[in-house]
Amino acid sequence: MSKVNKVVLAYSGGLDTSAIIPWLKENYDCEVVAFVADVGQGEQELEGIEQKALASGASQCFIADLKHEMVADYIYPSLKTGAVYEGKYLLGTSMARPIIAKAQVECALEVGADALCHGCTGKGNDQVRFESTFSALAPQLKVIAPWREWDLTSREALLDYLAARDIPCTASLEKIYSRDANAWHVSTEGGVLEDTWTAANQDCWVWTVAPEEAPNTPEFVTLGVQSGEVVSVDGESMSPYDVLTLLNDKGAAHGVGRIDIVENRLVGMKSRGCYETPGGTIIMEALRGVEQLVLDKESYQFREELGLKASHLIYDGRWFTPLCQSIVAAANSLAAPVTGEVVIKLYKGQATVVQKRSTNSLYSEDFATFGDDDVYDHSHAEGFIRLYSLSSRIRTLNKQKQS
Amino acid sequence: MSKVNKVVLAYSGGLDTSAIIPWLKENYDCEVVAFVADVGQGEQELEGIEQKALASGASQCFIADLKHEMVADYIYPSLKTGAVYEGKYLLGTSMARPIIAKAQVECALEVGADALCHGCTGKGNDQVRFESTFSALAPQLKVIAPWREWDLTSREALLDYLAARDIPCTASLEKIYSRDANAWHVSTEGGVLEDTWTAANQDCWVWTVAPEEAPNTPEFVTLGVQSGEVVSVDGESMSPYDVLTLLNDKGAAHGVGRIDIVENRLVGMKSRGCYETPGGTIIMEALRGVEQLVLDKESYQFREELGLKASHLIYDGRWFTPLCQSIVAAANSLAAPVTGEVVIKLYKGQATVVQKRSTNSLYSEDFATFGDDDVYDHSHAEGFIRLYSLSSRIRTLNKQKQS
Amino acid sequence: MSKVNKVVLAYSGGLDTSAIIPWLKENYDCEVVAFVADVGQGEQELEGIEQKALASGASQCFIADLKHEMVADYIYPSLKTGAVYEGKYLLGTSMARPIIAKAQVECALEVGADALCHGCTGKGNDQVRFESTFSALAPQLKVIAPWREWDLTSREALLDYLAARDIPCTASLEKIYSRDANAWHVSTEGGVLEDTWTAANQDCWVWTVAPEEAPNTPEFVTLGVQSGEVVSVDGESMSPYDVLTLLNDKGAAHGVGRIDIVENRLVGMKSRGCYETPGGTIIMEALRGVEQLVLDKESYQFREELGLKASHLIYDGRWFTPLCQSIVAAANSLAAPVTGEVVIKLYKGQATVVQKRSTNSLYSEDFATFGDDDVYDHSHAEGFIRLYSLSSRIRTLNKQKQS
Amino acid sequence: MSKVNKVVLAYSGGLDTSAIIPWLKENYDCEVVAFVADVGQGEQELEGIEQKALASGASQCFIADLKHEMVADYIYPSLKTGAVYEGKYLLGTSMARPIIAKAQVECALEVGADALCHGCTGKGNDQVRFESTFSALAPQLKVIAPWREWDLTSREALLDYLAARDIPCTASLEKIYSRDANAWHVSTEGGVLEDTWTAANQDCWVWTVAPEEAPNTPEFVTLGVQSGEVVSVDGESMSPYDVLTLLNDKGAAHGVGRIDIVENRLVGMKSRGCYETPGGTIIMEALRGVEQLVLDKESYQFREELGLKASHLIYDGRWFTPLCQSIVAAANSLAAPVTGEVVIKLYKGQATVVQKRSTNSLYSEDFATFGDDDVYDHSHAEGFIRLYSLSSRIRTLNKQKQS
Repeated sequence: MSKVNKVVLAYSGGLDTSAIIPWLKENYDCEVVAFVADVGQGEQELEGIEQKALASGASQCFIADLKHEMVADYIYPSLKTGAVYEGKYLLGTSMARPIIAKAQVECALEVGADALCHGCTGKGNDQVRFESTFSALAPQLKVIAPWREWDLTSREALLDYLAARDIPCTASLEKIYSRDANAWHVSTEGGVLEDTWTAANQDCWVWTVAPEEAPNTPEFVTLGVQSGEVVSVDGESMSPYDVLTLLNDKGAAHGVGRIDIVENRLVGMKSRGCYETPGGTIIMEALRGVEQLVLDKESYQFREELGLKASHLIYDGRWFTPLCQSIVAAANSLAAPVTGEVVIKLYKGQATVVQKRSTNSLYSEDFATFGDDDVYDHSHAEGFIRLYSLSSRIRTLNKQKQS
Repeated sequence: MSKVNKVVLAYSGGLDTSAIIPWLKENYDCEVVAFVADVGQGEQELEGIEQKALASGASQCFIADLKHEMVADYIYPSLKTGAVYEGKYLLGTSMARPIIAKAQVECALEVGADALCHGCTGKGNDQVRFESTFSALAPQLKVIAPWREWDLTSREALLDYLAARDIPCTASLEKIYSRDANAWHVSTEGGVLEDTWTAANQDCWVWTVAPEEAPNTPEFVTLGVQSGEVVSVDGESMSPYDVLTLLNDKGAAHGVGRIDIVENRLVGMKSRGCYETPGGTIIMEALRGVEQLVLDKESYQFREELGLKASHLIYDGRWFTPLCQSIVAAANSLAAPVTGEVVIKLYKGQATVVQKRSTNSLYSEDFATFGDDDVYDHSHAEGFIRLYSLSSRIRTLNKQKQS
Repeated sequence: MSKVNKVVLAYSGGLDTSAIIPWLKENYDCEVVAFVADVGQGEQELEGIEQKALASGASQCFIADLKHEMVADYIYPSLKTGAVYEGKYLLGTSMARPIIAKAQVECALEVGADALCHGCTGKGNDQVRFESTFSALAPQLKVIAPWREWDLTSREALLDYLAARDIPCTASLEKIYSRDANAWHVSTEGGVLEDTWTAANQDCWVWTVAPEEAPNTPEFVTLGVQSGEVVSVDGESMSPYDVLTLLNDKGAAHGVGRIDIVENRLVGMKSRGCYETPGGTIIMEALRGVEQLVLDKESYQFREELGLKASHLIYDGRWFTPLCQSIVAAANSLAAPVTGEVVIKLYKGQATVVQKRSTNSLYSEDFATFGDDDVYDHSHAEGFIRLYSLSSRIRTLNKQKQS
Repeated sequence: MSKVNKVVLAYSGGLDTSAIIPWLKENYDCEVVAFVADVGQGEQELEGIEQKALASGASQCFIADLKHEMVADYIYPSLKTGAVYEGKYLLGTSMARPIIAKAQVECALEVGADALCHGCTGKGNDQVRFESTFSALAPQLKVIAPWREWDLTSREALLDYLAARDIPCTASLEKIYSRDANAWHVSTEGGVLEDTWTAANQDCWVWTVAPEEAPNTPEFVTLGVQSGEVVSVDGESMSPYDVLTLLNDKGAAHGVGRIDIVENRLVGMKSRGCYETPGGTIIMEALRGVEQLVLDKESYQFREELGLKASHLIYDGRWFTPLCQSIVAAANSLAAPVTGEVVIKLYKGQATVVQKRSTNSLYSEDFATFGDDDVYDHSHAEGFIRLYSLSSRIRTLNKQKQS
């Protein structure tokens, strides 16, 4: 192991990163700085975290409030592409990793650290997301990934490790599910979910009520959209982050945004996860609703292609790449006129656009229905069809001539 | 107008095609053969249709039962691509048109007709779908599209036209919505839907109960999937068509499969439609569920790309083209191992896979979780990440060297 | 025919548009303003063109110099996407149409015209390109396309038409080939080319010498590239237009840039054309050469996808659409670091990059060859491969377990 | 190191694999079986290879003639997709690896080996191609990659290693270039090529004469194409492999098929290579020529997309994956009607289609030119354009109404 003087650790306050602090000091003989990213994981998780870090042996603890930046600069650019991974997953964990890693790098450069450390396991996507960001922003810094190095491979071993060092820890021996939360979503893996033939049960869901428990009366919410971003709720303007948290509350109350899927991890295996994205589900539905009015056929198709590509790039931790920047530029261009208003119905697990309008709408009652108008003459259709199917016609006429 | 001797009309028994029969005879001085395609639009629509056609002046009336063929040879190949138009529309009308038009052409060739006629309006997609099929299969036949020719542009005019000729007709003067049904779906356009800011009301939905009226208790249904096709329901093997109608009933009872969208028509304008596809929604959810287990990351992404492309081809009436055949070949290849079983929960408008398994599953409890195994060594991840992000690393190192 | 007061005609000075002037006046009883776009078609074509227009009956003649704008604002954005139509065609005519049509619209708005007219035939792409631009920029103006209206369908008829009106015309009765030239290329269609089994002969080529007649000694030219644009030739900085004309001369002398293809027209039929793009061929080769050094694997692939999409959009006259803007934004983003220098060898019809370098190069002699280095450890490869092929491994292990 | 009993080595007879035999025996204490794949690398390379292998310590040596299979089952399916990597590279080495690795696996299963070994370096693509194939076909076999394990990292070390063991070896100390040859191509890397600003010199090219040294008179060759495969040369039918070798000779004599590029390796770095693919260049030009006549616009575009995707899959060693199979199925479907004849001119480094014809041609002299015909009415174009640009029209009319 090459010499490390000071390492900045992405610290969550949980059992793993608590053990990493003393482990780093012992194994690398270095100073450990704890870096905590507030991405909206909840106040409970942040309470007393600095003290915890110091008690575990960190020399300093920095807490960065990234909540607003995450929603404005990472989530919305993604949403404009329409990225949904493998048709279902709204990329909650994926979108948070680059911003955390970037802030961690900035912290490391500021405190003069020569290494970066994260607590991601060696079988997951997050290690790739963290380290790809490190590679793009600070390849000169050494990366330490304890889960790929140490032999503390059970909760019991970790608890023993801390106990042996008299480091206080409130973690329990038994932890069934693995969870990750931020302003956008909460994910749940492990436990009964490991058998795909077992249905998710009540314990698998954290934020949302079961559709069966949701109100029997629908709720309607009106969202204002401007250039691909939701800027108001029921007529009240608010910041992207505030829109999200408000819609999280509304959606969760109606059981909106539950997803239970088996997905392909970047590292070649499959895993199953339950994701809850109540506000995000509502926001995406709203954006797609306005797009229906505003985007022409070819643009809509390209936006879908961009979303498909972006879903993999974001999932795979490729945010800070020229390709991702290029796709974001393309999506931003398409989103410019995506401005309008939608009414969304929340009911028993579903968020559905029931009304929509836009000043940039290409829909026109006059054009779409019977009766003559300025832009369309019925006779045009014949010429259109004739040319549109001309190669089919020529192909078959040729064949007939030859046979 | 060039001389026509015998024309085969795609006849529905409705007001429009009833008027087309005498109109063709008067304007083209030709024999008119009525061709009725049974694509599962319902017995009510077919009852007494032959008598009606003859009473309207047709010389003959042929009824072709295309229900099973449509599901097996048109719908399933489409479903394997995953085609969903503009993210929502399950292509119910689009998929039916090529099979109707193909059977109509076959009828025309058999009775020695020299022309084909359809009752599609001049602003819609269906005229393109019919005539593209005609172009591909029988470009030598003349095509007559009365809606682009005549001046009978209101229901009143059509009713008067028939009355003046003593042709019996039960159609009413007032018809608010324009509808199209087949085994896969029913669509509703017009009326209050023409204002996108007006919510769809009860009258806009035909097959499905409102989620609010659906049972308060979920229903669970087990579907067997083989190579991308649902082959059994709750353990009972049945034909593709029987699966569909059974799931239509189940889904409709739970309010499943309602979609209300504004879409881009091929002919350049937008229109709004309400679509009900209860069984289809369940089937697609089932196929996607098994795919989650079976398809690797790159294959899943390509399947999504194929679906996106196919959605436009099918919507645009391009079924009988080399491109569509090529895409179907690609999708068929991917679907071969998509075999397994899913349990789907039906509740208040939603169909959700809650359990899934497959002998071809790439998911493995052993591989995905902590602990060592045969296929994956934690240390592999480091090398993977290092090479995966190598170009980012080189790019930034270069920049640093230069500055 | 609805009433037209003043029409602006895209006037070339050739036989067709010369006849269109009196034809418009007689058939539409309107004032005709001639609009001439100088896109580098050559001084010969522009000489005395104003007099010619007025002699033919135009009330005014405007000549707009669009040469520099075309290269800077239309050609380079296209080149950054890498657009090449159907693998071969460098889009010379396609790229010129939107800029001509846009300037024509501006002229029409300035002179208060209520109609636009072009001389494109009814079977070609150019009518679509002109009218799509008109639709996007001035849909309120009426469009007149004489070739789709009149019955003057031969050169003889046109010459007679002019003679009958005493309009002087130097056009000859016999004109074998149909040609179009601008700063980027010259195209040749018709004559012997109409039989695809007949080889193009000497007469089919206008700008370039035959490779067989080109110098026996290669010429080497050094091009400086900055953010996807060639900014210097052999060390001398010059404007995009000047670079192009200089390289046209050099390339033409070496027989570079001849293409003879059958292509799919937008309107559904195929046509054969010979295209000469000497400077353009050199420029594209130069850009691709620098891209080889600068773009990472995923970016290069996306640039190729963008080029493929853009080739159709540009060919199809879709320049002024949100989709094209989006793609140009994406390509622009990728091109930002495409800066460097290449040496190109010109010899007997070929332009080949033989040397290249870039400060943004991701190529590094140190990294690519044997021996250890800072960024790459041989052992990383094992982990990479292991994860990279993990799903294949799992799939086959599963199958083996089952059999 | 886990115990290995018998290993099958992909043996070339060169210095590296000659040293690997004793190294395996010493380090793994196992029997070594040499497997030689004849993929057309040349008789010189195969002469006495069995004796060489045995003299180096192999217990057995198998030579498999894969030449015909490679061209028929690997190269042609690739060619039908149109795959060209990063716009230039014809994938010669990439296409050979899966077939070699597959035959090696078959050999291993036959002789009851429990491990596979290759001599690819740890920084290249070939290790990934070999091992991805191993993963797909025989994941149960252990893989040994000496270049990632041993410390024999120079030619001198390897020669010393052999000398110390009295193993005869004719390899010289100095070897400037790294080369790989098969029936399709020969590649050259290293030496002066490592500096991208240095032009390739005479020594970098092996098969082809310099264009400057090529005959001053063009040669014309007529190729018959059937369903995407060249089946005859100058009227004489021959096997795919014989076509290739004959065209290699013809092309090489005219300096055809030289490529000098910097490419992105799969493992994240760039490398420079000179490739000579004389026959392949001619064959690809021929296939594209017939495609120009036969494929409609959308099909051509999709074929280009398939080629782009396939180029990465093949380059990346993904041949034996469901995705690659799916793409091959799609390309095969498109290639079915690609039948016809082309005349190709070979001259001073270029292969150019100068004549082409096909019974499936969609080109028709009658349709493409002036004058009326059966399939196309000038007036159709107006309707086509009108609908084609309708969304542009509506968008701008809307904007005008609002401002």
